[in-house]
Formats: sequence, C-alpha cells, structure tokens
Amino acid sequence: MSIPTSITQILKAGPIHFGPFIVTTQVFHLTPHTYALVNLKPILPGHVLISPRRVVPRVTDLTPTETSDLFLTVRRVARMIERVYGASSLNIAIQDGADAGQSVPHVHAHVIPRKRGDLDDKGGMDAVYEMLDGEEGDLRDVFSKDGDEGRRRRFPRVDNDERKPRSAEEMEGEAWRLAGEMEKELDD
Amino acid sequence: MSIPTSITQILKAGPIHFGPFIVTTQVFHLTPHTYALVNLKPILPGHVLISPRRVVPRVTDLTPTETSDLFLTVRRVARMIERVYGASSLNIAIQDGADAGQSVPHVHAHVIPRKRGDLDDKGGMDAVYEMLDGEEGDLRDVFSKDGDEGRRRRFPRVDNDERKPRSAEEMEGEAWRLAGEMEKELDD
Repeated sequence: MSIPTSITQILKAGPIHFGPFIVTTQVFHLTPHTYALVNLKPILPGHVLISPRRVVPRVTDLTPTETSDLFLTVRRVARMIERVYGASSLNIAIQDGADAGQSVPHVHAHVIPRKRGDLDDKGGMDAVYEMLDGEEGDLRDVFSKDGDEGRRRRFPRVDNDERKPRSAEEMEGEAWRLAGEMEKELDD
Repeated sequence: MSIPTSITQILKAGPIHFGPFIVTTQVFHLTPHTYALVNLKPILPGHVLISPRRVVPRVTDLTPTETSDLFLTVRRVARMIERVYGASSLNIAIQDGADAGQSVPHVHAHVIPRKRGDLDDKGGMDAVYEMLDGEEGDLRDVFSKDGDEGRRRRFPRVDNDERKPRSAEEMEGEAWRLAGEMEKELDD
C-alpha cells in the first residue's frame, strides 16, 4: 500500500496532541482545526475519535469556527466510517467533562459504527455505552485518577477484558486505509 | 412571569415538528436551522434535545449549513444548561439511526447536565446511557417498533419507572424559563 497523500501531509503537520499524548501516526484525517484518529482499543471495528487540534478540555472552550469545523468533520468521517465498515447506524458521543466520564481532558467525539444485533452477545444494543466507559475505552487507563475507580466499578461491567491494546503497526495500517477512504469522500 | 420575547417568536414561527410530533410549546430556542426543546421525561433535570428544523433522520442528511448551526446551538445551549442547573460536566449524545438506539427518526442531540456523584444511587456515573436508552427516554414508547423490545430488555434495566411523563404546563413553564436564560447568553 503506497502512502496516501493526506498521510504525508499529516506527518508534516505533526506532532498532533491528544491531551498529553502525541498521536500523529494514529491520525487519518486533518482539517484546519480538527483531526480524526483511530482508537487504541476500539469498542467495535471502526470506532474512531474526532478532536480539535487545539488542546482544550470542554466544548465551551472551542471557538465557533472550531465548533463548526469539528462537527462538519464528525459528519464526513461518520459517513465514511458507515460506508467502509458496512454499518447501518452510528453512535456519536461526547463526554464533556470529568463528571460525564471524560478520561483525556481534550474534547473528543466518539464515532462508533453500528449494525443490527452487533452487541447481542455483549448485553444488547446499549452495551456500547457501558463499554465506552470501561477504563479500556481509550487512554483512560493511562489517565485514570484517584477515586474514580470505585465509582465506576459499581456499574456492572461488560466483558471488556478481551479488548487488548492494538499495536502501533496495526493502528498505523488502519490510519492509512481510512486516510485513503476519506480522500474518496465528497467535500460537502 | 412575563412571556420571553423569544417564546413569542417561536410561537409565531410554529408549528415545529419533532419527527411526527408537533412540539412548538416545548421549544425554548430557535435559530435559522435549529431548535432546542425540553424533554417529556428528562433523565436528569435540565436534560434537553437539540434538533434541526428540517425533519431528517440522519446526521448525513444535514447540509453543511445545518450541521454548523446545529452544533453551534448545542454548544450555546449546553453552556446555558450547565450554568442554570449548576452542573460541572455534560453528556452530549446522538443516536444516529435505529441500530444505534434512535427512537424518533429525526436527528436530535441529547444534552444532559452532570454533577459529581449524581447517579450514584442509580448504578453509577454511566447509568445515564442506560437510562437514555430505556423506552421512556423520550417519545420512544409512542414510537416503539416490533422486535425492538426483546433486544432492549436483555440489557439490565435501571430504575426508570419513577420517571413519569411531565405535564404540558410543566414543560411549557420550563421552556419559558430556559428561553429567558438563553437570552442572557452571549452570541459567540
């Protein structure tokens, strides 16, 4: 697979930060104010994150320009993800602040492709949210805080343990593939 | 309480549709392409919905202009809700399509104000998602479809039964109050 043009541009534009982390090689799409990245431990195949390039914790911290750019990007990425992963629906969710379950203090919209019955063996359609909030959801295990754990564990845990962190190579491969797919999307 | 100017404008602009329903008197904020409405059965006090004025089922159906307007409105309404309800965080969630749990086939972003420990007696921080997806979450009971029920019930049910539908008067009173509060928000 030859390197997509957009990946070359992303690598030139880096480093790209996700909170305190550098995630440049996980990024598959970049706009003036927004980037999209593949996930360390996706809940379902195609689970990606969309963030503002500026490291800010809350949606209210975004400028209007950043807000528009972020959600226009969510819409375009979501459309691509639904097509590429053969999904019929999407969950789009933002945990805006620690008391809403936010782990990394940097605005990020989860986009999760869904199919009919995809979580029937995990507890049903809505288990996606519980999995989102397991500590393996993204980089939360790196970023967990004292006192959170007891509160979280009160909620019955879905079988998250089979979700292993992916290798850098696997994430980079997916980023290249999705970068190529984003290049096929229309700009509207 | 005297009628807020924006409520007069909303009533003049009506009827406003939420899927097949007319919700004009629940609406507390209106922009060229977007409206915000109070909820029949809020999960937590201040749980509101933001929708495009055009009745379209999926985020991908929105034009770029509608997308920007919707999420700029989400940001402004979220800021107001956090202030008025004394919250510290927010859940922002879109169930984009039936297989992601969407009930009414009209794009709607849930905005739910959160405080530390607010759901400790309901199953913990993340019970909000399960409650969102109980059939009482919005108008789903009016709109339920054959075959959904069995799948949903597999997921352990949080204590939703105490959530009674609110009266038209109660919702209208909250809409007037929130309309007045929105008028205090800056336009950025």
